[in-house]
Amino acid sequence: MTAKRFCQRAFLKPEKIDEYRRLHAAVWPEVLKTIKDCNLQNYSISILGDMVVAYFEYTGDDYEADMRKMAADPVTVEWWKHTKPCFVRHDEKVYYEDMEEIFYV
Amino acid sequence: MTAKRFCQRAFLKPEKIDEYRRLHAAVWPEVLKTIKDCNLQNYSISILGDMVVAYFEYTGDDYEADMRKMAADPVTVEWWKHTKPCFVRHDEKVYYEDMEEIFYV
Repeated sequence: MTAKRFCQRAFLKPEKIDEYRRLHAAVWPEVLKTIKDCNLQNYSISILGDMVVAYFEYTGDDYEADMRKMAADPVTVEWWKHTKPCFVRHDEKVYYEDMEEIFYV
Repeated sequence: MTAKRFCQRAFLKPEKIDEYRRLHAAVWPEVLKTIKDCNLQNYSISILGDMVVAYFEYTGDDYEADMRKMAADPVTVEWWKHTKPCFVRHDEKVYYEDMEEIFYV
């Protein structure tokens, strides 16, 4: 497999954890379709307390271009209007931080 | 794929981050073999500051038994003598905490 793995961390506002969980129990089908169209696979989101970790694999060959494509999808933009306010730093540009992979087997 | 995904979080002692990174740049071959023999795949470890996230997929049908098998492997036990002291809570039983998956596609 030639996928590039991503592991990202973010923090939720304590009062928004339930809402974030509820949103992700029923993600809009168009959002799921866009994820696939943008070459992301094996995408999971996990939480522990107020911490969120997203893990996914990118199978395309231009990650930045696919991320721009995702950010140009009107349904995804609408979805983010619901999810981004759940994060502590939602009004900054970066709310997920990339982690550094130090081991893989 | 019928694999069960695991996402786990732990914290390193600040003065041990470099050592933990160095250890994982050259994991002993026997440790890698045991990981595979215990039905773990697509195993990555990522760090951000003092936080560590392990992601892996379990493809067997008795996770507890395979974890006991891993803990009975002498080389893995020796390896853990190097890695466990890097963690903040290394002298407690649990140094990695399971996160809860709330989304998967």
